[in-house]
Amino acid sequence: MNAESSRGAQTVLAPGATIGILGGGQLGRMMAVAASRLGLNVHIYSPSVDCPAACVAETVSVGAFDDTHSVLAFAKSCDAVTYEFENVPAVSAKAASSVAPLRPSARALDVSQDRLVEKSFLRAQVGVDVAGFEDINSVYDLKRAVKRLGLPCVLKTRRFGYDGKGQVIIRAEADIAAAWNSLSPAPCILEAFIPFAREVSIVAARGLDGQIAAYPLTENVHRNHILHTSTAPAAQDDGSAAKIAAKILEQLDYVGVMGVEFFQMPDGRLIVNEIAPRVHNSGHWTQDAGCTDQFEQHIRAVAGWPLGDATPRHSVVMTNLIGDDVNAWAELAKKPGTRIHLYGKSDARPARKMGHVNQII
Amino acid sequence: MNAESSRGAQTVLAPGATIGILGGGQLGRMMAVAASRLGLNVHIYSPSVDCPAACVAETVSVGAFDDTHSVLAFAKSCDAVTYEFENVPAVSAKAASSVAPLRPSARALDVSQDRLVEKSFLRAQVGVDVAGFEDINSVYDLKRAVKRLGLPCVLKTRRFGYDGKGQVIIRAEADIAAAWNSLSPAPCILEAFIPFAREVSIVAARGLDGQIAAYPLTENVHRNHILHTSTAPAAQDDGSAAKIAAKILEQLDYVGVMGVEFFQMPDGRLIVNEIAPRVHNSGHWTQDAGCTDQFEQHIRAVAGWPLGDATPRHSVVMTNLIGDDVNAWAELAKKPGTRIHLYGKSDARPARKMGHVNQII
Repeated sequence: MNAESSRGAQTVLAPGATIGILGGGQLGRMMAVAASRLGLNVHIYSPSVDCPAACVAETVSVGAFDDTHSVLAFAKSCDAVTYEFENVPAVSAKAASSVAPLRPSARALDVSQDRLVEKSFLRAQVGVDVAGFEDINSVYDLKRAVKRLGLPCVLKTRRFGYDGKGQVIIRAEADIAAAWNSLSPAPCILEAFIPFAREVSIVAARGLDGQIAAYPLTENVHRNHILHTSTAPAAQDDGSAAKIAAKILEQLDYVGVMGVEFFQMPDGRLIVNEIAPRVHNSGHWTQDAGCTDQFEQHIRAVAGWPLGDATPRHSVVMTNLIGDDVNAWAELAKKPGTRIHLYGKSDARPARKMGHVNQII
Repeated sequence: MNAESSRGAQTVLAPGATIGILGGGQLGRMMAVAASRLGLNVHIYSPSVDCPAACVAETVSVGAFDDTHSVLAFAKSCDAVTYEFENVPAVSAKAASSVAPLRPSARALDVSQDRLVEKSFLRAQVGVDVAGFEDINSVYDLKRAVKRLGLPCVLKTRRFGYDGKGQVIIRAEADIAAAWNSLSPAPCILEAFIPFAREVSIVAARGLDGQIAAYPLTENVHRNHILHTSTAPAAQDDGSAAKIAAKILEQLDYVGVMGVEFFQMPDGRLIVNEIAPRVHNSGHWTQDAGCTDQFEQHIRAVAGWPLGDATPRHSVVMTNLIGDDVNAWAELAKKPGTRIHLYGKSDARPARKMGHVNQII
C-alpha cells in the first residue's frame, strides 16, 4: 500500500473543505470558480502571486513547482490536491500525494508528461491506435527511424511540448540533421505523419466511485498549432471516442477530468494523438452548454462527489482569444448568444491565451 | 452638477479594471465570480474578512458600512462601486460616489431603504399600484390609520426590514397597542393587507446607455417569510410586470439589476410590494437558464458594458437551502439536472441562506 492509498484515497470532501491546485493559470482560475459554486475552498500553488487564479482563490502559495519542501507544506494544508497542467515534476506530485489525496494520481502525470511513455502506454496497455513512433536519442536513431516511418514525419521532444512547441516536421532526408540539431540534446520521439481528415477530442471524467461521464465528441480547428475553435457536439460521432476515453480512464484508475485528442482518418478511424490529465481547452464549450461544465465536473471528481450530467442542451462553438484577439472584447460583448470568458491577463502577448468566447447555436 | 456626474458617470470599464462591492455576502460572492468571467477585478468592502465573497475577490477591505472615511478610501481604489444590499448608509453611498461612479446611484438607495419613501415614489412618481399605506409615528397615528386601511393590516418598520423581520400583522383593534409596542420607537408604515392570488417578481437591468433587459416573470413561494422557491418563466405573463419595472428603472435613471416584487390579485392586477436595487434572490434561477445570468448582467451594467441576453433557454425552479437544508448537499449532488450553488458559510443557523439549487425543467 503506497502513501496515497493509506491516506484517505477514498476521502469525500464536504463543503468547506479545501482543494489545492498546482498551477494558477486560466484552468486553475475556472476550477476555482467552479469550486466556489460547490462551497469548496481553493488553495492555489503557483510560481507567481500575480497569476490568473489568484484573485478567485481563498489562498495562494508562491513557490517553484520543483520545490518539494514548499509543495509538501502546501499539500498539508489541503484536503485533496489536483493540478491544472501535466508538467508537475514527479517528485512534487509524490510529495503532495504523501500527505493528501492527489487526484488525478501521480501515475497519470508519469504517463502523460512523456510522449514515449504515453504512446507506449496507449498502444500496449490500453490497446488503442496511435501514430507509428520511435524512440530517438541520436541522429543515428533518427535516420534509421525516418526510414522505418517514412516521410513526412514529425520529430518531437519527449517532454514539455505544447501548442506546437518542441516539434519539427521532417519532409525530406535532407532535413534530418537540422531537425535533430534544433531539438537535441532533449530526448525525442519520431512520429509518423497522420494524413487526418479532422481533429477531434473528447473530454471525459471518472469519479472516485468509478463512474464515467463523457461529454460528446468535439471537433477542433488549430491555427499556428494553437487551438482556434472547438465545435460540440461534433458531427458524425459513433461513440468510439467515448469508449476509448473510458478505457484510458479505467486503465489509469483515474479520478478527474481528462482530455483525449484524436486524429480522425478519412475512413473514420480514430488515432489517439495525446492525453491531458486535466481540464482541457477543447472542453471550454461545456461552460455554456446547459450541462455540468468540465471545471465543476473535475472539482466534483476531485472532491469525491458524484459526477454531474455531461449531456449538453445546446450546441456551442468555442473560439479562443489569442493575443490581440482580446482587444475585441467590446464588440464581442454586444453579440447575442456569445458568452465571454476572460482570464485576467494584463499583457496580450502574441500566441498567449487571453480568453475565449462560447457562441451558443 | 453633482460630484458623481462630474467624475466619470459615463465611464466604461475595460478588462483589468476594478469594481468595488459594498457587502460581502452571497450576492457579492456571485457578482465577484461573474466579474472574473469578464476579466474584471473585484474589491469587497465588508465588516468581516470572513465573508462569503472574500475567497473569490481579489481584494477585501474590512470596515463598518457607516465608517465614511474607510468607505472613501475603499472607493478611491475602485473604477466603479456597486452594492449587494440596500441598507448602505446614505452618507457612505455619497462618500463613495464622490470619488467613483456609484452604480446604481445613491438615489436608488434613498428610495428603497425606507418603505414610506419607496411607496410614495412608486405611487406618485412612477404611477404604479401599491398597497394602501399610512405614515405611523405614534399609537395615535396607528389607531387612526387602522380605521382608514381596515383590518387586517400590516405594521412595518420603515427601515431595515427583510425576510419578515420588522413587521407584524394587526388582525383586530385589540392588537394595535401590542403591535406598536413591538416595533416602536422605530418610525413605521401601516400597509393594507393584500389578498393576493400569488407572489411574482421581475428582475430587470438597465445599462449605462439606457438599454433595458428584463428577465421573464418569476413566481415565488415564501415559507416563514423567506423565499422558498422561484419558478421561471412564470405562467400567465402578460408583460405588465416588465413594463412596470422599466418605468421604475427609467424614473431612477438606474444602472444595474433591480428586483421588483409584486402581489398579483385574482384578477391579474399587479401591486408592487417592494423594490431591491441589486441582484435578487428571485433571480438566482438565471444562473442555469442558458442566458446571461443576473450577476453578469449587473456587472455588465456597472462596468458600462452592453447588457447580455435575458431570454432563458429553459425553465428553472430555484429552491433556497435555508439552515439545515444544506446538509442534504450529498443527495442534491446526485440529482440529474440539479445545479448546486453553495455560499461557503460554515454555520448553518436556522433561517440562514446557505445556498440554492436550480432544477432545470
